[in-house]
Amino acid sequence: MTDKINRANDELISKQLEATPIIIGLDKALSVIPGMTESTLLHAGPPLEWKNASGPMRGNIAAALFFEGKIKDVSQLDDLMLSGDIQLKACNDYHSVGPMAGVISPSMSVYICEDKKTNCRAFSSMSDNSLLGRGNSPRFGIYSPEVVAHLHWMETIQAPLLNAAIHSQSGIDMKTIISEALHMGDDCHTRIRAASFLYIKELCCSIIKASSKNPQNAIDVLDIMYTDMLVALNPIMATCKAINESTGPIENSTIVTTMARNGTEFGIKVSGLGDQWFTGPAQLAEGLFFPGFSSQDANPDLGDSAITETCGLGGMVMATAPAVVQFAGGTAQDAIHSTLDMYEICHDEHPIFSIPSLDFRGAPLGIDIRKVVEKQIYPKINTGVAHKDMGKTMIGAGTVLPPSDCFEKALEAFVRKKESVLT
Amino acid sequence: MTDKINRANDELISKQLEATPIIIGLDKALSVIPGMTESTLLHAGPPLEWKNASGPMRGNIAAALFFEGKIKDVSQLDDLMLSGDIQLKACNDYHSVGPMAGVISPSMSVYICEDKKTNCRAFSSMSDNSLLGRGNSPRFGIYSPEVVAHLHWMETIQAPLLNAAIHSQSGIDMKTIISEALHMGDDCHTRIRAASFLYIKELCCSIIKASSKNPQNAIDVLDIMYTDMLVALNPIMATCKAINESTGPIENSTIVTTMARNGTEFGIKVSGLGDQWFTGPAQLAEGLFFPGFSSQDANPDLGDSAITETCGLGGMVMATAPAVVQFAGGTAQDAIHSTLDMYEICHDEHPIFSIPSLDFRGAPLGIDIRKVVEKQIYPKINTGVAHKDMGKTMIGAGTVLPPSDCFEKALEAFVRKKESVLT
Repeated sequence: MTDKINRANDELISKQLEATPIIIGLDKALSVIPGMTESTLLHAGPPLEWKNASGPMRGNIAAALFFEGKIKDVSQLDDLMLSGDIQLKACNDYHSVGPMAGVISPSMSVYICEDKKTNCRAFSSMSDNSLLGRGNSPRFGIYSPEVVAHLHWMETIQAPLLNAAIHSQSGIDMKTIISEALHMGDDCHTRIRAASFLYIKELCCSIIKASSKNPQNAIDVLDIMYTDMLVALNPIMATCKAINESTGPIENSTIVTTMARNGTEFGIKVSGLGDQWFTGPAQLAEGLFFPGFSSQDANPDLGDSAITETCGLGGMVMATAPAVVQFAGGTAQDAIHSTLDMYEICHDEHPIFSIPSLDFRGAPLGIDIRKVVEKQIYPKINTGVAHKDMGKTMIGAGTVLPPSDCFEKALEAFVRKKESVLT
Repeated sequence: MTDKINRANDELISKQLEATPIIIGLDKALSVIPGMTESTLLHAGPPLEWKNASGPMRGNIAAALFFEGKIKDVSQLDDLMLSGDIQLKACNDYHSVGPMAGVISPSMSVYICEDKKTNCRAFSSMSDNSLLGRGNSPRFGIYSPEVVAHLHWMETIQAPLLNAAIHSQSGIDMKTIISEALHMGDDCHTRIRAASFLYIKELCCSIIKASSKNPQNAIDVLDIMYTDMLVALNPIMATCKAINESTGPIENSTIVTTMARNGTEFGIKVSGLGDQWFTGPAQLAEGLFFPGFSSQDANPDLGDSAITETCGLGGMVMATAPAVVQFAGGTAQDAIHSTLDMYEICHDEHPIFSIPSLDFRGAPLGIDIRKVVEKQIYPKINTGVAHKDMGKTMIGAGTVLPPSDCFEKALEAFVRKKESVLT
């Protein structure tokens, strides 16, 4: 059986590496995400009932409903969400991913990432950061009139320009951008500066060209992209999701294809177990809190961005981004040891995503639930931290571990499934 | 005496660190460089007689004379240069620096870097790379009609837009850009990708604004800046030159304030020895040659860009840019050892320019000729390689060592000067 599992895991990694995901443009979620309806709201993490939604998740849902014109005042939020008129669904169950609370509503434009090998598609929201300041955005739970106005500006000005620019480049290959950014100090999850520069480089001149009748629009879009410096996260997430969608479920594979958090629960999916979620309570991140905040203010872990860790990025490649570790008081050696730990629980090493400080060794790739449970080493996830109250902002950043339960539950389910086949 | 020298060296480093160099704009060399005349051509490296000029130096001089309208055909070059009508002068003797052959002619716009503490100014050319391809530029010895046309475009379109953008930002602080780029895999001499991104970030929106009547100009300028990816080298060099000019000569200091190569000779200046050059034959770089080329085709070492090494960059900080070492077949460990060697010959460590892979240790700063001669460890310089024939292009990149003579000659002169004071 071990051989069979290893072969299945080899097959999964091969398929991941053969994927050729390209960001081909943007379109309205309702038009392009299969299964999306006018009453659907997608959210980060495993499936969630409204009554269990955390503060930042409620805030992002409020922002989306203001944006959709479905509420006029926040006092209407609870009634609407309890009325049954809105279907809350997990992004990951709809080929989609969103960072932090990660809410995607029908009228929002989303990045389309298409794997040119299998024609699979995956989707992610655009970065909703604005000039209002870091974390003052819907995904951290803000629903003020200013951020809702920014969502409308994103739809009317930013999305058409980004779409035109992406089309004029015949799509954007984020894998190339990722591999270069890893050589420029990015982990491509929490630190995305280099990837954002490389992404803007691809689009800059085309954005100016597409707005030549109104150069101010190009200035506004580029100003926000350059101020954000997290702007490449969303297309990177769509790329990672497309990679994992492209493989399809692989019988007997014990590799994790989804890790996602909704602010209440953490959930994983495993290739050999198809679409089933295995969940446990979302944990609190450890790291650095901005002045005036502490872990007491923190919401439990949030966001679909841990899809990056399933593709060998983020917490897998701390060694390449010591600045992420230094931010929280660690050393470059800590960063290297962190990545060396991750090799212990991974099936393979990435042939293209490599780590300069480890002599260009490939990134740890393919988290194997057997190794996680056996060694009790858990995948490290780099993350931002949202305030636990609705309508407050980002309060820090750091590293978080998944709850051990979900890996154990998944391995039990895997063993049960194998036993049922044998008996 | 040793105490006196160490105190002088401390003073030099303190003054270097107190400098606040800001790129304040561009202007024509003739208007802004003190001592520049209509018949002056500045060149890289120590002073050079025309008869000793190497192929790439002759090529860059030809390009500048075509640009100035002083020759119509390359057959006129030798006559003009031997006529005495053109004065060849070393950039470094005119507060200036130029990469590779580094020719600055009177009508060329140059970056102005002003130290806000002392009001000292230093100057550098703009990057003359174009869309014609890497190394297909005057500084590598090309003088084709296309590159001369590009020099005219740089003057009429690029320089005014860059100047307007720099003014609208109230100047650009390259020290901040350098310190961040060192955390993104740049050595800030051969690898300047991150610094170029950071530099473009500062200017992008202002360039679009300044060309709002003709957005195509913004597209053309940004397209070349993004294609070049060495675009930050020139303002970084002007910044390093301004830092070293700001200190003035410091009696008793044994620290190197200039290293420069003219393709024939390598020369250094030492703070305690004022403006005197100490020279030896320029060496051949070791590294990687582009397909079809070998060290047999290489011109000896060329350019003022080794000013970066005198400020703790380039070959001093290999450890932060292992990709530079990997390019020539080395490992990340080689890169770290290379930087550890440089600490052996430096007086101090930079408090702001730091190296993530050495746990954010400061860059080796202040090359001390006493330590160089005593330990026979020579400062490593990262560099591009030009073809030895006039009119050919870049053929590779690598690392070069200075000739040992110039450090020995400088130390002898230093000792003689001290003896003459004592006797």
